[in-house]
Amino acid sequence: MKICIIGTSGHYVYALRGIKADKSSEVVGISPGCEGENIEKLISQVCELGFKPKVYDNFREMLAELKPDIAVINTFFYKNSQIAIDAMYRGINVYIEKPVATTLQDLNKLIDAYQKTKVKLSTMFGIRYTSHFWTAYNLVKGNQIGEVRLIHAQKSYKLGIRQDFYKRRETYGGTIPWVGSHAVDWIYWFSGKKFKSVFATHSKMYNNRHGDLEVSATCSFTLEDEAFATVNIDYLRPQNAPTHDDDRIRIVGTKGIVEVVHGKVFMLNESVNGLIEVPLQEGPVTFYDFIKEVRGEGNCLVSADDAFYVTKACLLARQAADENRIIEFE
Amino acid sequence: MKICIIGTSGHYVYALRGIKADKSSEVVGISPGCEGENIEKLISQVCELGFKPKVYDNFREMLAELKPDIAVINTFFYKNSQIAIDAMYRGINVYIEKPVATTLQDLNKLIDAYQKTKVKLSTMFGIRYTSHFWTAYNLVKGNQIGEVRLIHAQKSYKLGIRQDFYKRRETYGGTIPWVGSHAVDWIYWFSGKKFKSVFATHSKMYNNRHGDLEVSATCSFTLEDEAFATVNIDYLRPQNAPTHDDDRIRIVGTKGIVEVVHGKVFMLNESVNGLIEVPLQEGPVTFYDFIKEVRGEGNCLVSADDAFYVTKACLLARQAADENRIIEFE
Repeated sequence: MKICIIGTSGHYVYALRGIKADKSSEVVGISPGCEGENIEKLISQVCELGFKPKVYDNFREMLAELKPDIAVINTFFYKNSQIAIDAMYRGINVYIEKPVATTLQDLNKLIDAYQKTKVKLSTMFGIRYTSHFWTAYNLVKGNQIGEVRLIHAQKSYKLGIRQDFYKRRETYGGTIPWVGSHAVDWIYWFSGKKFKSVFATHSKMYNNRHGDLEVSATCSFTLEDEAFATVNIDYLRPQNAPTHDDDRIRIVGTKGIVEVVHGKVFMLNESVNGLIEVPLQEGPVTFYDFIKEVRGEGNCLVSADDAFYVTKACLLARQAADENRIIEFE
Repeated sequence: MKICIIGTSGHYVYALRGIKADKSSEVVGISPGCEGENIEKLISQVCELGFKPKVYDNFREMLAELKPDIAVINTFFYKNSQIAIDAMYRGINVYIEKPVATTLQDLNKLIDAYQKTKVKLSTMFGIRYTSHFWTAYNLVKGNQIGEVRLIHAQKSYKLGIRQDFYKRRETYGGTIPWVGSHAVDWIYWFSGKKFKSVFATHSKMYNNRHGDLEVSATCSFTLEDEAFATVNIDYLRPQNAPTHDDDRIRIVGTKGIVEVVHGKVFMLNESVNGLIEVPLQEGPVTFYDFIKEVRGEGNCLVSADDAFYVTKACLLARQAADENRIIEFE
């Protein structure tokens, strides 16, 4: 597989991980996705893996010349869907930063391109692949807690000093889509249920001069079968905290409860004695399973439909927060 | 202080704890609050404390004859406010089960009686007095985490087999007021902020033949200053779990984060190194501080205004869930 990487503003390391695991893929080209995007670190990371990628200023020129099998796209967030569409109409499969679009219009254009081009598409919901989330997922899917009834998910990040494009809604997209999309993805993935409605809130107060960037947010989803899910999102994790993020989920079912916290998995159910810590299972490797899907070997854990559905849910949640109302899903 | 206890369907043990701590108070009378309410266990617990209470069938007769200083009221939930009003018009101070009323109409009648009679009133928000919640409260009030921006509170209970009055909305009041009122109280108490609006959800699915009783619920409060709070409530804790309940709160501030989980308190802030467990402080004794307030010695931790405000918030949250809409506070 020939792979090009466009941009460095997101989780391209997920792609590097998969490329390393695959061994028979190669990074052939690198470019920024937007003017002014620094790609120095990406170049050195790719060279460290033993590749000799051609470096371009312009991604279109790169895609035209190198005709890669897969484009990895993670530039300033508002540009990702547009670049993906460009690549897709060239017949190139795309692995896109999440959320896959920052407006509903852009999302619809992306879905349209996907349907027309029939390329493969996945997105960077890399937390699904961590051993703790993978283990928890398998407990829920293995019916250890019965029917899912109530979920709470937490995303907590350090703010630090963010690049300028984070400071404008138009270029950043908002904190519910950017940070919250992981949590919304877990809810969808763990429950296997469609969303019926969402209410949400967000605030940019105390954002340390980060313009439009919201540093606190909540979502409240009503799912099929009267299952409910809430999300807490913040950028208020102290700078001296031991990790950048504090990702958690608690899933309450009719027969038990599963939690992920501090990278560990805990379970209570009717057949175990007390609260147990569950040994972690290794899951698939992020992006490697997308490479395999492109080769025709099985399906990627994060489908194109998942990418579209979760992105839409995040954009509706953002709208609910902007407009202080409940939004029903179609 | 002469104390009468009416009913056994709630947390009268909070009162017994305070009476034991006080040493100069006495339980002089006991009665059921509703026909058919079993008070055998209460009688034996009070006698074990060395008191010889007179036992009545009818609380009115008891209050008229014994003229206690304080009535402890915890019968079938829908009756508590009516009995309290009866006692208040006799000039008796009241310590009432939470929520202090199960309808807005009853709440308004209770507030009216409070204003007219000028007796003392408090409610059974006993979790404030536990050493873990008390310690966390003092960290927040001691400015260890800056301004409160985001709160998530959890109440998780075992369902078991509940008495019949739990199975009807009219007699039970609903799970958001009954179970959730603690969480709503913590949010109000920790943040010190008024509520601006609430959205909520609840479901009685999978309630094991408990009629109207909701076994899963969420609340989403918007507070003053764009602070937000969510609540998860469930009765789905497995029967073999190590404790009846799993009470938690996480409070995110502008300078740090405090959490209560599994009876412990954890904190992250800019001046401590990593996530620390905070040694527990003993707080005041539940009900004992109400006895002292009645004697004119200081103020009870749970004021009458707190009782009314949190009850109203719970009843509006229940209404938001019933009607699937956002309700603004006046």
